[in-house]
Amino acid sequence: MLKKNRLACTLACTAVLTAVGAAGAPQSPADPQALARIRAAALRSDWSWQRLEELTDRIGPRLSGSPQQAAAITQVAAAMRALGAQVSLQPAKVPHWVRGEERAELTDYPGRPEGLTQRLHLTALGGSSATPAAGLEARVIVVRSFDEMHARAHEIRGSIVLFDAHFDQRLADNGRAGDAYEQSGRYRFMGPSEAALLGAAAALVRSIGGADYRLPHTGATRWKEQQTPIPAAALAAEDADMIARLAAHGSVAMRLVLTPQTLPDADSFNVIADWPGSVLPNEYVIVSGHLDSWDLGTGATDDGVGVMAAAGVIQVLQQLQLHARRTIRFIGWTNEENGGRGGKAYFDSVSGAMNSQCAAIESDEGAGRALGIVAAVTRDSLTSLALPLEALAPLGATVLEPREGEVGSDVAPLQSAGVPGFAPLVDARHYFDYHHTAADTLDKVDPVNLQTQVATMGVLAYYLADLPACLPRVAASAH
Amino acid sequence: MLKKNRLACTLACTAVLTAVGAAGAPQSPADPQALARIRAAALRSDWSWQRLEELTDRIGPRLSGSPQQAAAITQVAAAMRALGAQVSLQPAKVPHWVRGEERAELTDYPGRPEGLTQRLHLTALGGSSATPAAGLEARVIVVRSFDEMHARAHEIRGSIVLFDAHFDQRLADNGRAGDAYEQSGRYRFMGPSEAALLGAAAALVRSIGGADYRLPHTGATRWKEQQTPIPAAALAAEDADMIARLAAHGSVAMRLVLTPQTLPDADSFNVIADWPGSVLPNEYVIVSGHLDSWDLGTGATDDGVGVMAAAGVIQVLQQLQLHARRTIRFIGWTNEENGGRGGKAYFDSVSGAMNSQCAAIESDEGAGRALGIVAAVTRDSLTSLALPLEALAPLGATVLEPREGEVGSDVAPLQSAGVPGFAPLVDARHYFDYHHTAADTLDKVDPVNLQTQVATMGVLAYYLADLPACLPRVAASAH
Repeated sequence: MLKKNRLACTLACTAVLTAVGAAGAPQSPADPQALARIRAAALRSDWSWQRLEELTDRIGPRLSGSPQQAAAITQVAAAMRALGAQVSLQPAKVPHWVRGEERAELTDYPGRPEGLTQRLHLTALGGSSATPAAGLEARVIVVRSFDEMHARAHEIRGSIVLFDAHFDQRLADNGRAGDAYEQSGRYRFMGPSEAALLGAAAALVRSIGGADYRLPHTGATRWKEQQTPIPAAALAAEDADMIARLAAHGSVAMRLVLTPQTLPDADSFNVIADWPGSVLPNEYVIVSGHLDSWDLGTGATDDGVGVMAAAGVIQVLQQLQLHARRTIRFIGWTNEENGGRGGKAYFDSVSGAMNSQCAAIESDEGAGRALGIVAAVTRDSLTSLALPLEALAPLGATVLEPREGEVGSDVAPLQSAGVPGFAPLVDARHYFDYHHTAADTLDKVDPVNLQTQVATMGVLAYYLADLPACLPRVAASAH
Repeated sequence: MLKKNRLACTLACTAVLTAVGAAGAPQSPADPQALARIRAAALRSDWSWQRLEELTDRIGPRLSGSPQQAAAITQVAAAMRALGAQVSLQPAKVPHWVRGEERAELTDYPGRPEGLTQRLHLTALGGSSATPAAGLEARVIVVRSFDEMHARAHEIRGSIVLFDAHFDQRLADNGRAGDAYEQSGRYRFMGPSEAALLGAAAALVRSIGGADYRLPHTGATRWKEQQTPIPAAALAAEDADMIARLAAHGSVAMRLVLTPQTLPDADSFNVIADWPGSVLPNEYVIVSGHLDSWDLGTGATDDGVGVMAAAGVIQVLQQLQLHARRTIRFIGWTNEENGGRGGKAYFDSVSGAMNSQCAAIESDEGAGRALGIVAAVTRDSLTSLALPLEALAPLGATVLEPREGEVGSDVAPLQSAGVPGFAPLVDARHYFDYHHTAADTLDKVDPVNLQTQVATMGVLAYYLADLPACLPRVAASAH
């Protein structure tokens, strides 16, 4: 998943960095040569790529509660142990939602030749309830916004609401993929719940993404406390278009079959692997990604690449036998996609000793080339990032993007407690073409891009872990 | 379908056209103002677009023998009658193949965690036989070519052969989409048959197309006389890649379930609609496209756009109340995709009076903008195309592409009897992204591009139908 991705800082931050340079030595003693060695080793290593190939080709989709997710936890824990890291599995109960049959067809529409139906391409949203096994048949009400739905509130009861909000690819093309995702994504997150409040029989959303290959994009939808879920699915963009065209001529009816099951919560684990600090081993800089994925593709870009880039940081440190002052802690999160239980479990485990959490890095914005660093830190702290950015300059990762708000949903609870948050800034222009679809597969990852993410996270993690003092806490209001 | 699409003639043909201009008046009396009126009317009309919307949104996929194909025949015949054309339905028995279940998974491969399988995305090829209902399980042999298969002939018996030949998008990007299609398409056409000869249990082909959205591309496969078909399917490119990667490490096994049925041949029809000639009503210039489509998408680009562009020629002539010297005959072909029975039936019906067939135009190369004219004519005849190209110059359709060989598979039998063949030359760089997939839907068609095809076919058909004498026959050896 991804929340924001603004390339907002090139000019302002260049000025900041220049000022830092002019002001003399930065406060960190981190050895620039160590950072350069980390960068170089990351760009030579194919360890993360090999692990990503195992994770995607050999294990595959890793939805919470699935045997594939369990296999992924086993795989990464073993790989970390083989590197000599101190590995622990942190338990978390996770939602266990299992996709079933999913099909739909238009059973009536203006100009329909007698006896014909029009087949649709869709996929259930995580958390959807099931229709009757034979399906439900109802009129489709097409709306472009929540306002439009409320203006037609009297038509909603018993109907299937289709939220036909288009993904704004122009925003994505201009470095604001996260904003584009938020803009149409809120209909996936909140649409089914809002439609249910008005008595809708089911809710559909136009797929959130920029492509046009009749690919439905799944994802989580949210229900209010105590709310009974209704059937909810994402239609391929083409099908949303077709229904909107037909509905412009008159009434459209659909038969919808979705048979997912929500099983009892399952046992799962965060994989935690510590690369001990030489001076302050009980203070931690986290490098992380999430091990779970949606169930349609093999989760290569969301978030195989992120979790293996993070794991690769430990491999590089092991290879160089480098230990920073603090412990660098790899976390492979469980259940990012449909519950966030991994992030919550970790937060709960450290909430009594939050000062031990020096900084948290998460990569979960796709497989693009690393362009720099996203930093959710105080304004003053921005200047201290000159050194790692300088070390990353040879690979072109020179942009510093200050972010207000979360850098990754697993580390968001830590951020809300003031922990500085970071992410590699990646080129996400095409991330949402494949996001949460069957086409999220290994071929979408360029091995060199993956190496740039290892380098960026490695340099940043080592730098932060080697600082004389952790960067100051960030006011919660900034999130 | 599409065979060749070369942008090969810009320089040479410009010279030819210039020479014609210098030589004085061309031989045709076709009124340039009439051609200009046809062009202008085509670029104003939304009639073809409205019919295409009906054909795709309201009728949908139109595989031979399906009720949708029958509905399409009814629709187009009614539309032609409404224009006042002389409509007849020409019977043709068509293959009736019906897709069933289709799923596959890798059940073993190097490094497979115990108990896991990896799901694949594929679709049966037209003409595939069925596996047992519970599926067949066999080793997968990955080959890149027929030579490689024959070199491994001893491994083929009882195995599933995967032809992993990549579509050359660079060729397509350079105006040679048809060559790219032929190059990898031969594995779809002939691979299953060749594999069956070596005792393969089933055959798979990497999807023929340039995209990467885990879309399988269906299409026809050919069996030899008396050959018993085996199960045959197209894998999504991603799945072919994955299997090739895994097979590089060792043995890969697959469970394959395909349950298509081949039913008795069904009744179908070519839709023929004549717009009578004023002088020689028993001589014909054909404008055509095919009404059938594959069953995954709604056949908007293959070949809804072509058949409705051809139909639009009649609408423009009706609107202008223009009659050329000869009859302009619209044909909506049946069964182009998996049998060619429509083209054969028509050929048989005119084979005793082939001189009545003056010229044949077919549009079946997708929804791109018209760039000019493809002409399978004698070298001398090329010069006579200066006038229609001049009339098309205002819309930029200025390229004359001489072609040796067929311009469309439905008119190929006529061409083989010497009838000059023509097609609109269209931009096909992205045609194979969607070709024969679920994503071949109306949104892939730009209404203006469709208008340019109507204009090109209309100007060309009127010009050919108004010539004092038909263009000379083409030597069969040219095909």
